[in-house]
Amino acid sequence: MKEIISFIRGNDGFLIATHINPEGDALGSAIALSMGLEAIGKSSIVYERDPIPDFYRFLPGCERVTDFLPDTESFSLILVDCNTPDRAALEGHTFRHTAVIDHHETDREFGDIKWVEPGAPAAGLMVYRLLKEMGIKITGDMAVNLYTAIAVDTGTFRFSNTGPEALRAGAELIEAGAEPALISEALHESWSLARFKLLCMTLGDLEIKDGVALAVITKDMLGAAGALPEDTENFSNFPRMVKDIKVSVFFRETEEGWKASLRSKRRINVARIAERFGGGGHRNAAGFTIKADLQTAKRMLLEEIKDALT
Amino acid sequence: MKEIISFIRGNDGFLIATHINPEGDALGSAIALSMGLEAIGKSSIVYERDPIPDFYRFLPGCERVTDFLPDTESFSLILVDCNTPDRAALEGHTFRHTAVIDHHETDREFGDIKWVEPGAPAAGLMVYRLLKEMGIKITGDMAVNLYTAIAVDTGTFRFSNTGPEALRAGAELIEAGAEPALISEALHESWSLARFKLLCMTLGDLEIKDGVALAVITKDMLGAAGALPEDTENFSNFPRMVKDIKVSVFFRETEEGWKASLRSKRRINVARIAERFGGGGHRNAAGFTIKADLQTAKRMLLEEIKDALT
Repeated sequence: MKEIISFIRGNDGFLIATHINPEGDALGSAIALSMGLEAIGKSSIVYERDPIPDFYRFLPGCERVTDFLPDTESFSLILVDCNTPDRAALEGHTFRHTAVIDHHETDREFGDIKWVEPGAPAAGLMVYRLLKEMGIKITGDMAVNLYTAIAVDTGTFRFSNTGPEALRAGAELIEAGAEPALISEALHESWSLARFKLLCMTLGDLEIKDGVALAVITKDMLGAAGALPEDTENFSNFPRMVKDIKVSVFFRETEEGWKASLRSKRRINVARIAERFGGGGHRNAAGFTIKADLQTAKRMLLEEIKDALT
Repeated sequence: MKEIISFIRGNDGFLIATHINPEGDALGSAIALSMGLEAIGKSSIVYERDPIPDFYRFLPGCERVTDFLPDTESFSLILVDCNTPDRAALEGHTFRHTAVIDHHETDREFGDIKWVEPGAPAAGLMVYRLLKEMGIKITGDMAVNLYTAIAVDTGTFRFSNTGPEALRAGAELIEAGAEPALISEALHESWSLARFKLLCMTLGDLEIKDGVALAVITKDMLGAAGALPEDTENFSNFPRMVKDIKVSVFFRETEEGWKASLRSKRRINVARIAERFGGGGHRNAAGFTIKADLQTAKRMLLEEIKDALT
């Protein structure tokens, strides 16, 4: 962490970027970091190629996030919640200096300064530590962003990455102004009726065999429910609730092929499986896209999962 | 709390009892309290009329819970997570002394010593405070019970009753030996396939109108899914995920009539509504049983809800 603090103190004009298809940890960490830099007189912009999903628009300061990319050469890059430029849609761009703040397992060579802690439950918890270490007062707006970041990546304190530090940070962030119920409502209780209907349809057709749940969401189903592709986010978590299901796979039909979203319990590492198909992620939550007919994609993936389960 | 400590120190031979149809806060608090008393050389039994639901059998020490009621006159009663003998199926019994540890809003006159804090998120948090105040070391087994109790009543830190104290207690309980992921898995990811199928069936037929979701679970549906009545616990939480749903009502067909389970968001107090039908509970989670045909029951309840929403 000392290196990243020196990096921040020694530079100005930051471009904070996070991964494409951003979720709460990416957005919350990036926004809170930008606010923290501002508090010590450092300028920054937050770049994100993809739109912010509607249900994250409650994050204070989300208007800082822009999909406009300036001439990058005069900026110092801080990648948050990812560790390669391509994950942030920044491949081919050059920066004055580069730094990485990330907690993903799949770590590649990039960054003048790298602060990667696969053991950290959320990038948001790393940013929280960083701001505290730098003596930056955590405002109510920062607190909402950081609490959200931690809540999203720990399943609001349900996943195996939940530890005392995440809970104590949560307690302090509540005292700084985060409201757990409002954040949980925004995250978990702000579904549209269309999304809810699509979930019910999808669960109705779920296949379950040998500890693996497999669901398919076609474009037709999206249409019938009046739902959007991003409405399917985290659908693959649902079958986890069933005791005998160890791995859950949701295939979604896209223009680029079948987008597979994988979830697992405990020690089953779906990031390793996703990597074999050119994707990545965390041990218990990963994904990839495959150009193949559905039956082939299913068969190939189920073989890999079978290997991982035995 | 001082009075309850004197009560415990000044007596021995306790009967710890909790409410019928026990859930995690009732069981976890009662078991942990029994373990705590044992640690200071006090004997106790834990009485519960109803069976422990299977998915709570992971609680260490749950074998302490018995449905055998001895001659009560020689015992000192401690009611936990409820505040009247009838809620614990103990009406008409006499005890040497009586005490209450509870956090329910609907408080009635009972108990030589009453420690009722409607502001406490869980009875488990009160027992945690009590054990700490008494200088009793919290063992790993106590920690699992107390963490579970707090997790159940705060929706694993999602409900509006989640505050810094609950999170800091959670952090300490992890350090004492509670494993959040194992507990969350037991609570949220140990569903039987039958239960999961019943949920999908129930959600498929959900009626949604004017911010109210209403579902009906008949005996026939239970049969078709191969599910048990207790499998429906907390089903009524599900429609909360939909933004525009403010109140959720699940009717379940029983021998005694329609059992209504109510859930609400934020300031809508369903305990008040349930009380009008002879039931009770918390602001955002309550219930009652009504002997009426389904259409009448629905109509009467929807009128009360309409009043509460306007």
